[in-house]
Amino acid sequence: RINPDRLWDSLMEMAKIGPGVAGGNNRQTVTDEDGEGRKLFQKWCEEAGMTMAVDTMGNMFMTRPGTDPDALPVYVGSHLDTQPTGGKYDGVLGVLGGLEVIRTMNDLGIKTKHPIVVTNWTNEEGTRFAPAMLASGVFAGVHTQDWAYDREDHDGKKFGDELKRIGWVGDEEVGARKDKMHAMFELHIEQGPILEAEGKDIGVVTHGQGLSWTQVTVTGKDSHTGSTPMPMRKNAGLGMARILEKVDEIAWSHAPHAVGAAGHIEVFPNSRNVIPGKAVFTIDFRSPDLAVIQDMENRLKVEAQKICDDMGLQVEFEKVGGFDPVEFDKGCVEAVRNAAERLGYSHQNIISGAGHDACWINKVAPTAMIMCPCVDGLSHNEAEEISKDWAKAGADVLFHAVVETAGI
Amino acid sequence: RINPDRLWDSLMEMAKIGPGVAGGNNRQTVTDEDGEGRKLFQKWCEEAGMTMAVDTMGNMFMTRPGTDPDALPVYVGSHLDTQPTGGKYDGVLGVLGGLEVIRTMNDLGIKTKHPIVVTNWTNEEGTRFAPAMLASGVFAGVHTQDWAYDREDHDGKKFGDELKRIGWVGDEEVGARKDKMHAMFELHIEQGPILEAEGKDIGVVTHGQGLSWTQVTVTGKDSHTGSTPMPMRKNAGLGMARILEKVDEIAWSHAPHAVGAAGHIEVFPNSRNVIPGKAVFTIDFRSPDLAVIQDMENRLKVEAQKICDDMGLQVEFEKVGGFDPVEFDKGCVEAVRNAAERLGYSHQNIISGAGHDACWINKVAPTAMIMCPCVDGLSHNEAEEISKDWAKAGADVLFHAVVETAGI
Ligand SMILES: NC(=O)NCCC(=O)O
Ligand SMILES: NC(=O)NCCC(=O)O
Repeated sequence: RINPDRLWDSLMEMAKIGPGVAGGNNRQTVTDEDGEGRKLFQKWCEEAGMTMAVDTMGNMFMTRPGTDPDALPVYVGSHLDTQPTGGKYDGVLGVLGGLEVIRTMNDLGIKTKHPIVVTNWTNEEGTRFAPAMLASGVFAGVHTQDWAYDREDHDGKKFGDELKRIGWVGDEEVGARKDKMHAMFELHIEQGPILEAEGKDIGVVTHGQGLSWTQVTVTGKDSHTGSTPMPMRKNAGLGMARILEKVDEIAWSHAPHAVGAAGHIEVFPNSRNVIPGKAVFTIDFRSPDLAVIQDMENRLKVEAQKICDDMGLQVEFEKVGGFDPVEFDKGCVEAVRNAAERLGYSHQNIISGAGHDACWINKVAPTAMIMCPCVDGLSHNEAEEISKDWAKAGADVLFHAVVETAGI
Repeated sequence: RINPDRLWDSLMEMAKIGPGVAGGNNRQTVTDEDGEGRKLFQKWCEEAGMTMAVDTMGNMFMTRPGTDPDALPVYVGSHLDTQPTGGKYDGVLGVLGGLEVIRTMNDLGIKTKHPIVVTNWTNEEGTRFAPAMLASGVFAGVHTQDWAYDREDHDGKKFGDELKRIGWVGDEEVGARKDKMHAMFELHIEQGPILEAEGKDIGVVTHGQGLSWTQVTVTGKDSHTGSTPMPMRKNAGLGMARILEKVDEIAWSHAPHAVGAAGHIEVFPNSRNVIPGKAVFTIDFRSPDLAVIQDMENRLKVEAQKICDDMGLQVEFEKVGGFDPVEFDKGCVEAVRNAAERLGYSHQNIISGAGHDACWINKVAPTAMIMCPCVDGLSHNEAEEISKDWAKAGADVLFHAVVETAGI
């Protein structure tokens, strides 16, 4: 069993870096705060006897050697970056849970056949630089590094430049180790309400739902809110409002097997007395069923085009992120279920509603995820909360699944 | 007759300060560019023999003395500040048209009984600091100076601090001269399509429509776009979309005697994978009929409350700007109509669709406005355009109305 107090203390210590305004965190990717969080994690890992490698995407690989020189490493980890108004556990639990696994092995004098690597994947959240899971995606060969380096934040700063600025461009070629992974496990909070409602300690994640991010640009004509008669208006903001209503309708038509909303919304020039000439917003559609995602994407385009044609507006679509639904590795999933069973934790199968680095890594190595409940299913909110018991159960299961997979 | 080439050259010279990105201007109030524009205007006025006074709101009063020491000044003017993506003429034509009146008087050796004061009113646009017509409003006693100084821009900077920073807090008490004004004339582009469509050179502005700005704050709950089931969402962005649709419906129900839209729209935390927990936006309703404005305001509140109640959202309303419909001074309006008639310009009565400093000054002095057409009725857009002939006609009428009112 892991040491829940030590795990909790580390979570609270990390949460001091990049504090939010309401008890959570704002430690967005490749900011100074991200750099500080990385340093603290590196220090803890080195104290636990691990050695560090960093790749050219800033992914951190902290290694505890195995006893068999030919055995490939077992990976555990998640991400330390947060949303601008994020919680203390989203991602962090998976990274520090991995560290706690190593600390517990040290306590108990456990040596594994396979090395263990605890990983911090860069820019999982995708808020500052779309898409989400950027660096694990480059690692898995889904995106090129050049493309990733060119992603721009809201101020036009590039991902590559910012990674360099905070001093975390490593010298290991990204993805160099992707064919030499024995397995990977990611512990993460559920970010949804199911486990808490069902009273389960552990979610055995069998699948991840797929995602589609479509950035929509509606173009009308800036004009005066007072002196432009109603029939002459080309109100891009109103066009956007009508599209947002359709997005909701489309998602509901597939519920409970789909969700849809826009989290990112901007109008230009954003002045009280100027009818918006441009609206830019990003639609997030998800489903465990690829055909449903495709249907929603297509209907969005048709409906938005119709709305804009009727209003004399132009509309353009750009896919800025996405991944297909994922089925995790049966063997790894079984290792998670066995661990929960053995430890006596209540558990159930679950489909991840969110995207995770594990979704990309699953393309290059046998992968599975462990979920623990979170209060009211709330995440991407500073008020995100979990209990120490839930963190303990998740890290215990991670510990057992890793030990079983890495062999003693 | 005024000198149209000289007027045009000055308009083009001023437009070089705070250029926009698409041929217009970004010379927002109390920015460095505003300061530069003020300096140039001051220089031109002093070259034309005028002396400057500046009040504590930064309003500039450039005086050409009259021949009768007891006669109160006739005011002409408008504003030099622009929208973030504004045109070259909105406001500027009225200020530089006033300067051209003085230059023409100098050319022709005209001396008036009443002094003439050419005015640049601070922060007419109200984009950076709501409400619009802020400084003429304080001058006319509608707002207190303390309240105006405390207005904050998007970055939390205060109007008073920014005015000080650019060095334009004058030592004349704001409003000190408000009971000593003989009359005021404001020349402005129409910003709407009527005069061009009717083929008229001059709009004789008899009334101004009233305005109401209501800032709406919808509060829901930030949560994950992927893992939050549809029925659990409290999507403030979707609530906003539904309210925007209602705003359009409410305005149309009173058309053509009303308009309505939102130019300012923001969601929080504005992250692609976070359901907006908060949306803040400003509704701009206008009508020449006060009862219609009040009806629209009331229906907005009722409908928005209903929408938010249905969705489990909270909603709050804050009135951030507004003025009642205005009837301009019959004598001043007559002076404008006479001038157009005498000069042989085609003209018609018109109601101003936009708010203007003249709307506030009308409370403290006999006031009227002169309008000239603009291409396609387009304003609050960098592509705003007028012809030199239109500018000439407007300034000619201003010149004659001022000379008639100021007496020779
Ligand atoms: N786990 C998580 O919130 N990841 C961010 C990517 C997503 O939006 O699903
Ligand atoms: N003329 C003008 O655009 N004034 C700004 C105030 C308004 O929105 O009407």
